[in-house]
Amino acid sequence: MTMMLMKRFLILILFVNTSFVPAFAQSKALVFQSDFGLKDGAVAAMKGVAYSLSHELAMFDLTHEIPAYNIWEGAYRLNQAASYWPAGTVFVSVVDPGVGSERRSVVMKSKTGHYFVTPDNGTLTFIAENLGIAEVRIIDETKNRLKNSNESYTFHGRDVYAYTGARLASGIIRFEEVGDSVFYDVIKLPYAKAEMKSGVLQGTIDVLDVQYGNLWTNIDKKQVQELGANVGDKLIVKILHKGNVVFQGEAVYGNTFSAVEQGKSIVYLNSLLRLAVAINQGNFAEKYKIGSGGEWRIQIRK
Amino acid sequence: MTMMLMKRFLILILFVNTSFVPAFAQSKALVFQSDFGLKDGAVAAMKGVAYSLSHELAMFDLTHEIPAYNIWEGAYRLNQAASYWPAGTVFVSVVDPGVGSERRSVVMKSKTGHYFVTPDNGTLTFIAENLGIAEVRIIDETKNRLKNSNESYTFHGRDVYAYTGARLASGIIRFEEVGDSVFYDVIKLPYAKAEMKSGVLQGTIDVLDVQYGNLWTNIDKKQVQELGANVGDKLIVKILHKGNVVFQGEAVYGNTFSAVEQGKSIVYLNSLLRLAVAINQGNFAEKYKIGSGGEWRIQIRK
Amino acid sequence: MTMMLMKRFLILILFVNTSFVPAFAQSKALVFQSDFGLKDGAVAAMKGVAYSLSHELAMFDLTHEIPAYNIWEGAYRLNQAASYWPAGTVFVSVVDPGVGSERRSVVMKSKTGHYFVTPDNGTLTFIAENLGIAEVRIIDETKNRLKNSNESYTFHGRDVYAYTGARLASGIIRFEEVGDSVFYDVIKLPYAKAEMKSGVLQGTIDVLDVQYGNLWTNIDKKQVQELGANVGDKLIVKILHKGNVVFQGEAVYGNTFSAVEQGKSIVYLNSLLRLAVAINQGNFAEKYKIGSGGEWRIQIRK
Repeated sequence: MTMMLMKRFLILILFVNTSFVPAFAQSKALVFQSDFGLKDGAVAAMKGVAYSLSHELAMFDLTHEIPAYNIWEGAYRLNQAASYWPAGTVFVSVVDPGVGSERRSVVMKSKTGHYFVTPDNGTLTFIAENLGIAEVRIIDETKNRLKNSNESYTFHGRDVYAYTGARLASGIIRFEEVGDSVFYDVIKLPYAKAEMKSGVLQGTIDVLDVQYGNLWTNIDKKQVQELGANVGDKLIVKILHKGNVVFQGEAVYGNTFSAVEQGKSIVYLNSLLRLAVAINQGNFAEKYKIGSGGEWRIQIRK
Repeated sequence: MTMMLMKRFLILILFVNTSFVPAFAQSKALVFQSDFGLKDGAVAAMKGVAYSLSHELAMFDLTHEIPAYNIWEGAYRLNQAASYWPAGTVFVSVVDPGVGSERRSVVMKSKTGHYFVTPDNGTLTFIAENLGIAEVRIIDETKNRLKNSNESYTFHGRDVYAYTGARLASGIIRFEEVGDSVFYDVIKLPYAKAEMKSGVLQGTIDVLDVQYGNLWTNIDKKQVQELGANVGDKLIVKILHKGNVVFQGEAVYGNTFSAVEQGKSIVYLNSLLRLAVAINQGNFAEKYKIGSGGEWRIQIRK
Repeated sequence: MTMMLMKRFLILILFVNTSFVPAFAQSKALVFQSDFGLKDGAVAAMKGVAYSLSHELAMFDLTHEIPAYNIWEGAYRLNQAASYWPAGTVFVSVVDPGVGSERRSVVMKSKTGHYFVTPDNGTLTFIAENLGIAEVRIIDETKNRLKNSNESYTFHGRDVYAYTGARLASGIIRFEEVGDSVFYDVIKLPYAKAEMKSGVLQGTIDVLDVQYGNLWTNIDKKQVQELGANVGDKLIVKILHKGNVVFQGEAVYGNTFSAVEQGKSIVYLNSLLRLAVAINQGNFAEKYKIGSGGEWRIQIRK
């Protein structure tokens, strides 16, 4: 056998094999988030659109139980989970009360190489700050929209976002083909940062760890260190709603729930390394009727 | 090297490679729907049965939150989502209050090439009409039933439907091997069609867009056009429960929610291009205590 | 061409191909269970960690709606579904009220070849008994823990269990690399077995078939046979809560719900072949306010 023949064989072998390679190489995760709930066919319609475009996508759900129209919570949950996914992952987030209005539909690429396909209505508030913005492109719906969906004005999750996200994740289009790049910041919801004022840590209850009723605040680990709190210290916790004191009490600062007896309150750093308040095996929010959002403030002192 | 040797090599190469081809070629989506809820292990038992038959299936959920025993809503949700999936997709739908009784277990192939594995109890009402019936086969449980499951009479979702659906989707059996073909229509739930009567559109509230409290009716786009409604028109909406007027009021006809101020009512074409009623960023069903089903009628006039 | 050249070719061909083989051969299901609920980003953070380790994992959910802190129900649901998955499947179960305390983190290999990654807090009670213990290894967190997660004490689901489960399921580590093997039984929750006493079957309502309100007891098929109950027999059912009679009445023993009229009670063997009580197309638990757990006892006689 001559070298020429050998080369032919090599080419043949590689050709036959490379027909499989792209599927693996380009196969990326497509992660969905919405406020659609799981009771109807909306999420499945989005996944059907995506699967029709590529059978090789790895599809996952972040959550579909964002409270209806609650962009703040959508922004929070996206930030809670996205950084645990590898670069290249495409997130489709649809909390879209302004669907069909003039709000922009965008894909944001973060500095970490994650992609976020979403209405630009505040959903990107935290993730843009946390991961950094590499580039934002406005979705060109003349190219990136489900065929024959133009008469539907109320389900861009299916017709625009799932469609564009699936094409991007599967490699049918590159990021550059999403639409024009824009030199502007994404829309951000207003929010206050936590601060230390005359020895008192002052922050907001951003969100509830809903399943357990724990309170998750915007006070970070460094601020807790400024307070000089050490594991085992007793801290004074005050919670205000619209300026009225709703709860005041002592709680131990510990690493984890079991640092206190069952039924006792504890202050700890949660899985995002922010200050949180819980009852060991209880439900703090339910017991003391605490909610979350800008009107719910928390003060912590030694 | 002789040609004979070359051929041997070719055969070897192709053989080694084709061992992967079928998995890709036959890999099809298997989409589950049920009224099982997500609180226990029932859905996972079905998927375990399917995964045991083939590791190459792409499994998805339509919804498992169909209200218990509610065949109507199962039929509606199946129709809401199925057409967004590619031909060849196998749907397993199990809302099966008559499990273990004489109701037939079937696989319906639609004219669009989708497969529906289900008890024939009305679940196929809308999808049969929408996609058309190509052929119906009765599942032969002597062949298409999980081994050693004969003592269980109450979980055909696991023992018959998931098992048959997974075998069909993975290519272990062909459609012809499901069981005998039958020349009869599938069982259909009775339902009224919407109609125009003396200038008034009269229809039924088929289902709620539950997460947002929007009302989805059976009035289609063509009928709205017959009414001569144009975007921006004010329409009179009347809702009756068992013949009693429950709501009467004006609402703007628009393309999308944001066509009216927040908190105002709107009439629009939903994502299935049927007439729907909503409150922009509100919950119409909750505010006016509206339900869905045959006893809930709606009238629309200019 | 010489034999030597031929061998080289063979090696080349096999090498090129085997680059795909391991992914298939080792690709195993990773099935998650938790009490996290589906409302936030916790489940998605676990799956992101797993997907970052291997793109070839087939990930599924058993349920994430185990009531908060309820180890008993976690143990029950795991046992309800696991045996329907093939040998080699890795289950990650996280109902972990003692997270960060001294409770052990383990991987149990069953005699059937299934793996269970979990805090050893009682979660393995039923599955260990049902499938048998082949070997238990304590997770060595110096090796099997998400990088840079040491400051987080409250989310071992993400940092330890999903991480270890994904490495095991994808073949990055073998079972032997989880950590030291221990010769001790797993922690078991105390529970009473059902028994026949003077002609009366006495058992516990282990759990509710929550979606339908059916009562699932710990009385097995053999015990029902001891009672001599035949299909069609009328049985006397008595239900006690903390020793007080809450319900007493007759119910037919049948194979399936439709053996009685709609709205009537039935005693049957459920999909795990244990005695259960239901109302045909109704909700027994809701109608008679019945719960589940050790304090809820049931007595059955002819």
